[in-house]
Amino acid sequence: MKLGFVGMGIMGSPMSVNLLKAGHEVTVWNRTKAKCEAAREAGAKVADTLAEAAEGAEVVLLCVSDTPDVEHILFGEGGLAGSLKPGQTIVDMSTISPEATVEFATKLEAMGVEMLDAPVSGGQKGATEGTLTIMVGGKAGVFERVKPAFEAMGGNIVHCGPHGHGQRTKAVNQVICALNILAAAEGLLFAKRAGLDLETTHRVVSSGAAGSWLLSSLGPCMIGDDWRPGFMVRLQAKDLRIASQAMEAVGAPSFGTQLTTRLFNEAVMEGLGADGTQAIAKFLGWYE
Amino acid sequence: MKLGFVGMGIMGSPMSVNLLKAGHEVTVWNRTKAKCEAAREAGAKVADTLAEAAEGAEVVLLCVSDTPDVEHILFGEGGLAGSLKPGQTIVDMSTISPEATVEFATKLEAMGVEMLDAPVSGGQKGATEGTLTIMVGGKAGVFERVKPAFEAMGGNIVHCGPHGHGQRTKAVNQVICALNILAAAEGLLFAKRAGLDLETTHRVVSSGAAGSWLLSSLGPCMIGDDWRPGFMVRLQAKDLRIASQAMEAVGAPSFGTQLTTRLFNEAVMEGLGADGTQAIAKFLGWYE
Repeated sequence: MKLGFVGMGIMGSPMSVNLLKAGHEVTVWNRTKAKCEAAREAGAKVADTLAEAAEGAEVVLLCVSDTPDVEHILFGEGGLAGSLKPGQTIVDMSTISPEATVEFATKLEAMGVEMLDAPVSGGQKGATEGTLTIMVGGKAGVFERVKPAFEAMGGNIVHCGPHGHGQRTKAVNQVICALNILAAAEGLLFAKRAGLDLETTHRVVSSGAAGSWLLSSLGPCMIGDDWRPGFMVRLQAKDLRIASQAMEAVGAPSFGTQLTTRLFNEAVMEGLGADGTQAIAKFLGWYE
Repeated sequence: MKLGFVGMGIMGSPMSVNLLKAGHEVTVWNRTKAKCEAAREAGAKVADTLAEAAEGAEVVLLCVSDTPDVEHILFGEGGLAGSLKPGQTIVDMSTISPEATVEFATKLEAMGVEMLDAPVSGGQKGATEGTLTIMVGGKAGVFERVKPAFEAMGGNIVHCGPHGHGQRTKAVNQVICALNILAAAEGLLFAKRAGLDLETTHRVVSSGAAGSWLLSSLGPCMIGDDWRPGFMVRLQAKDLRIASQAMEAVGAPSFGTQLTTRLFNEAVMEGLGADGTQAIAKFLGWYE
């Protein structure tokens, strides 16, 4: 397929490389041009403007940070909306507000442009290895048409329902992840304070009913004082803000999510935003 | 070994049967005699008094509900302390207060009686299949001596440190489990309110970073309106109370555990105590 790709961050860059490896023709764009280098080396054309990235592309993929970024790229000054043509498709792989997603899709539809929301999970590792989970919202026919591109980037590609349902599924994922991280941090921090051997404790609890992907992955980081990011605290905080709003929008109870949203936000305010999410243990007092 | 076993509940009864199957000689006692039937059929002698259950036993195992129960059985009127002899060993497999455990061990030591705390996880299924995780606190030499009995009941038997450290490890386990349950309930309840397909959502999120043993085990129960107990809400509430106190005792932060303790207690007050822990989703408003 002929594709445009907007957003060459730590996710977008390796994702575009995997699209190129799979034989797709990709034109990339990023605000900071230097970040387009990996894609250029893999064969991408680098566009000077958003319009150029979209020109002649069957599908334009976006992978940026937050709702206002997507809005700006689509509808802001010099945004894609000014140059998109009927029949083109926007695939937003950022994690943003489900409500805003539905709005954007409606606006684009009025221009004859289709949209899918397709947030991912699996982190930089999944993006590089092409094993991302991709949670897709939008029309089934459009999903089928874009699927070959998804298959170059992900290992678990699921159509979750209409516009916004990809983002809502991602919100479910982030709600659960955040509480599982808090669980691991609070459990292991108690173990530390109580004088338990941390390796033994982690081994015992992670093999049974308390086991989770995050306890297995991040527990050893906490125990080993390794706060480097797999996924950053500030992005988890952003995703939790989006999830909290989405939960409020449908009247879902959010006792746990309100707590994790507060804790991750406070961790950002204490300067831990660029650490990995395991740093919630540091925030709670790992070194006190 | 010649063993006494006090407490023929849904855990103690199958545990005693496994000890008998492994060739140990077991005398059982329970306040309600009828609950001794499964053990009797498997070859146990049924004692009329606690003293009789302990008489000549190398090790007396306890598996009851809470700290006051263990205290009563050990030191109450007609309790074991009145008949235990130097050289005998008490193994408490209940989940109780770590601080009380240390007190009990100290009192027994003054009588020449050794003690191990050895709480378990794995539920009725693990108790029946002999695959429990057994978290043991106490002296290493005593642990080694009792190990053959543990091996008849458990698949993952770990010496966690001195008196109380078995209970503290169990507290870590329960802290993590409770937050993982809340994570699953809150995530899936948002999915339900948002109109997502629950089976699809569960499949997508449980296969990635949000995956946990409890999401895999209890998520399908929530989705299928199955509130039958694997582990009861009221026991989880009791374990959280113990964990909260243990966390307070060592100055460990417990934001998440305070929340889960409150929610599980409120669920008990709303009449859900005998449901399985997945009923926290019902408590949060699954049917609203």
